[in-house]
Amino acid sequence: MSDGEAQPALGRRRERQRGHRSSGPSDAPLPRLVNRWAPLEILDAEQVERIVDAAYRVLEEGGLEIRSARAREVYARYGGMVDEATQIVRLGRDVVEAHLAHAPERFVLRARDPARDLHVGGNVVNFGPVAGAPHITDLEKGRRYGDIAAFRDIIKVVHRLGIVHWQGGVVVEPVDLPVPTRHLDMYLAHIECSDVVWAARGVGAPQASDAIAMSAIEHGMSVEELAERPTLLTVTNVNSPRRVDEEILDGIMIMAAHGQCVVITPFTLMGAMAPVTLAGSLVQQTAEALAIIALCQMVRRGAPCVMGGFTSNVDMRTGSPAFGTPEFVHATLATAQIGRRLRLPVRASAVNASPTVDAQATYETAFSLHACIMSHSHLINHAAGWLEGGLSASMEKIIVDAEMLRGWAEILKPVSFNDDDLGVEAIKAVAAGGHFFGSPHTLARYETAFYRPLLSDWSSFENWRDAGGRSATERALALWKKARDEWTPPPLDPAIREALHAYVARRAAEITGA
Amino acid sequence: MSDGEAQPALGRRRERQRGHRSSGPSDAPLPRLVNRWAPLEILDAEQVERIVDAAYRVLEEGGLEIRSARAREVYARYGGMVDEATQIVRLGRDVVEAHLAHAPERFVLRARDPARDLHVGGNVVNFGPVAGAPHITDLEKGRRYGDIAAFRDIIKVVHRLGIVHWQGGVVVEPVDLPVPTRHLDMYLAHIECSDVVWAARGVGAPQASDAIAMSAIEHGMSVEELAERPTLLTVTNVNSPRRVDEEILDGIMIMAAHGQCVVITPFTLMGAMAPVTLAGSLVQQTAEALAIIALCQMVRRGAPCVMGGFTSNVDMRTGSPAFGTPEFVHATLATAQIGRRLRLPVRASAVNASPTVDAQATYETAFSLHACIMSHSHLINHAAGWLEGGLSASMEKIIVDAEMLRGWAEILKPVSFNDDDLGVEAIKAVAAGGHFFGSPHTLARYETAFYRPLLSDWSSFENWRDAGGRSATERALALWKKARDEWTPPPLDPAIREALHAYVARRAAEITGA
Repeated sequence: MSDGEAQPALGRRRERQRGHRSSGPSDAPLPRLVNRWAPLEILDAEQVERIVDAAYRVLEEGGLEIRSARAREVYARYGGMVDEATQIVRLGRDVVEAHLAHAPERFVLRARDPARDLHVGGNVVNFGPVAGAPHITDLEKGRRYGDIAAFRDIIKVVHRLGIVHWQGGVVVEPVDLPVPTRHLDMYLAHIECSDVVWAARGVGAPQASDAIAMSAIEHGMSVEELAERPTLLTVTNVNSPRRVDEEILDGIMIMAAHGQCVVITPFTLMGAMAPVTLAGSLVQQTAEALAIIALCQMVRRGAPCVMGGFTSNVDMRTGSPAFGTPEFVHATLATAQIGRRLRLPVRASAVNASPTVDAQATYETAFSLHACIMSHSHLINHAAGWLEGGLSASMEKIIVDAEMLRGWAEILKPVSFNDDDLGVEAIKAVAAGGHFFGSPHTLARYETAFYRPLLSDWSSFENWRDAGGRSATERALALWKKARDEWTPPPLDPAIREALHAYVARRAAEITGA
Repeated sequence: MSDGEAQPALGRRRERQRGHRSSGPSDAPLPRLVNRWAPLEILDAEQVERIVDAAYRVLEEGGLEIRSARAREVYARYGGMVDEATQIVRLGRDVVEAHLAHAPERFVLRARDPARDLHVGGNVVNFGPVAGAPHITDLEKGRRYGDIAAFRDIIKVVHRLGIVHWQGGVVVEPVDLPVPTRHLDMYLAHIECSDVVWAARGVGAPQASDAIAMSAIEHGMSVEELAERPTLLTVTNVNSPRRVDEEILDGIMIMAAHGQCVVITPFTLMGAMAPVTLAGSLVQQTAEALAIIALCQMVRRGAPCVMGGFTSNVDMRTGSPAFGTPEFVHATLATAQIGRRLRLPVRASAVNASPTVDAQATYETAFSLHACIMSHSHLINHAAGWLEGGLSASMEKIIVDAEMLRGWAEILKPVSFNDDDLGVEAIKAVAAGGHFFGSPHTLARYETAFYRPLLSDWSSFENWRDAGGRSATERALALWKKARDEWTPPPLDPAIREALHAYVARRAAEITGA
């Protein structure tokens, strides 16, 4: 074939496509993503230092209310100034810095599939799905309280799309299950529906212990072996401002004692649970996180920890949180800078506060995601399916997010080209005013030349209208159902599966007293 | 007032709001935006050099088809190798580089309001509105061919929202006006509805001459004075690959001769009008742009020029352009790098290829916009209202885009804080588990603390549903109508207005032979 033939290139192209690979989007799992760009920063070194100094002042002069006697005992043993009457624990800078020195700057959490190990730290970019929502919503069944079926659906869809590097903990709250044993079914779902690192619920001693036990079974190891080869994370909040509830501390201490990763995330909404200024919120967020990271190191030197942030502004008329705003972007960038200063890995969030899966949900998420990635945050939470400021997990939003995450993965790929790609001869070979559709240079490359979208529709308006005129959100319905229906369980040793079910049955009986 | 008072802070807040500034979004025009971050780059210096070398090879060995005898004559006079039979002009590297040396790396185009002068170059970020669409679409009237009423509406809305740094040329094609005189009414609309720099239509000698004449009247100067103090730009395409039509060349040469700014934008869709590889498209785009910039310098040494790019991939199944894709992002970043290497200002585009104003239109635009800004492109075209790959201008999309542009403007603002913003005493003053709503630190700041959105709705799902459950796009309808209806004409000397109308009447008569 040569350029300039009369035969339409389009026909020839269709012929070549028969018998070639599907023209659908890639569903290979995202590879380990690396961001080679310098981090985007908004503070200078002096500003970072002032924030850190101020955070230490808050810990030394104000302290945190630690509502667990066991935790207070640990603090006291390692040099904390504990007031049993108020439950306030104050920490000197020297004490905190001494313990912080043991927190690893980077570490690996092991997945059942070693290719899916979670690398935390450096310039690796990790996405995790929505977590913590009480509702599930989709265009078919509408908005309703979460249940275990929806929980499993989310994990399946996200696994099938291959868009996350770890599975969240409570991707949606399965309220159809009794509270005391709910976590057991959640963990079973994580292990059966996916094979990446998963997260334990961030509240409660049994929730932590059972996660560790089940992960040990999943990996065919003892709990002691697991401590040397961590597999789990948990995302825990602080009850900002400056309070940590007993159940949260119980969970944290068990995870740390067993060498598992704690992601400490203060919940510092500006003007509500933290000062209304960005600097003030960062000071408080840093203080709160450092106090807990220090505790983790006191419990077990070298326990892997991640410093989380969830600083954003609120709607000052109503107090509702706002996400994906300029303030949120700045807080995300600054938090990662503070993390680099303190040599701690950082967790951020790709979130929005829209009530529905529309343009607002999308631009807020896009702003958040851009900030998360460009800041060099190491764990980017809620990156698939988050809606309504966290009150709903949305199936359609998973698809919209998937397109954005895959787009970013492509953008982060290094660009390289050879002389042939420069195409000087190909350019000269096409006449002025001609076209490249039939050019050998094009035909040799076009099938793999471009990123193939999952969701985007590039039809003309007329074709789109005649095909039903559906918005991206409407098209997403069929796509998530397809992903769910095409999901196949990842490999799991039948003996391990049996052992897990036996464990769950035994524990459920113990917990319910049956 | 002190912390911890029983009286709800919410009530006190409402009282303070009475008599204070409106809680609506700021409608002050965007200030001159500066991007203080380092540009985001994807090529190394050697790759940039190889692209530039290859572009010079294309110009020397392949050349461009220049379909204007006058232009060929200019090229010949200044060392171009002209083949009159094929109309192909080849240019030696030395010739191009010699002329490129005169193109300014930065310059200012004067607006009627000096505060709105357009600074091109360096780290200044400029947004322009949609241009070139044959259709107008909105939720009220639906999709139809453009008309002068819609043309004026777009300019008014964009002016009222204050979101652009220059007005586009043909924001939508007003097909209700006769073609030969259409440009006169368009220019009148620009001058009457706004006071920022505006763009002449990029095709045709009369279109260029009339723009210059009318701008001279607008500024109360002679055409000669205007050449020393340029006020206009025009965005022109190349008929890629490697062809430039006579009417385009006519317009370019008149603009350049009169010292006005030409933005040369090859239209290099990968695999269609350019090689399917990114590197190849960039080679061709660079070659085409340089040939025209050289022409402009030959016509008038020092003529302000901008190197444009419109490289993106196509949907290989249909040939339709795709925008906001990873390829588009890479092309945008790389084009700006090439511009820095060649010491030329660069034009980029915040575009999408969605058929409707939905999540896809939004994430594609968000990806494009991020790339435009982070690349340090100097003119970011189509940043308000673009849809359908350029086939429609959308009124609702203007609002969605406005929110994103204002968001970026906030993000680009430098962050600074003082000791009081660090809030250590404020943090200590709020009890553990308390809240900051009523804190004096908060009350003193909250009214101006946060960016106030134009479009975003942070209501709870229930409140949003009960208020009508409208998507962002649906809410945008009322917002653009409000902006249009609240628009007031910027100041314009009545004598100048009269002179402009007289000019238009005279020229219309000349053109139509009436």
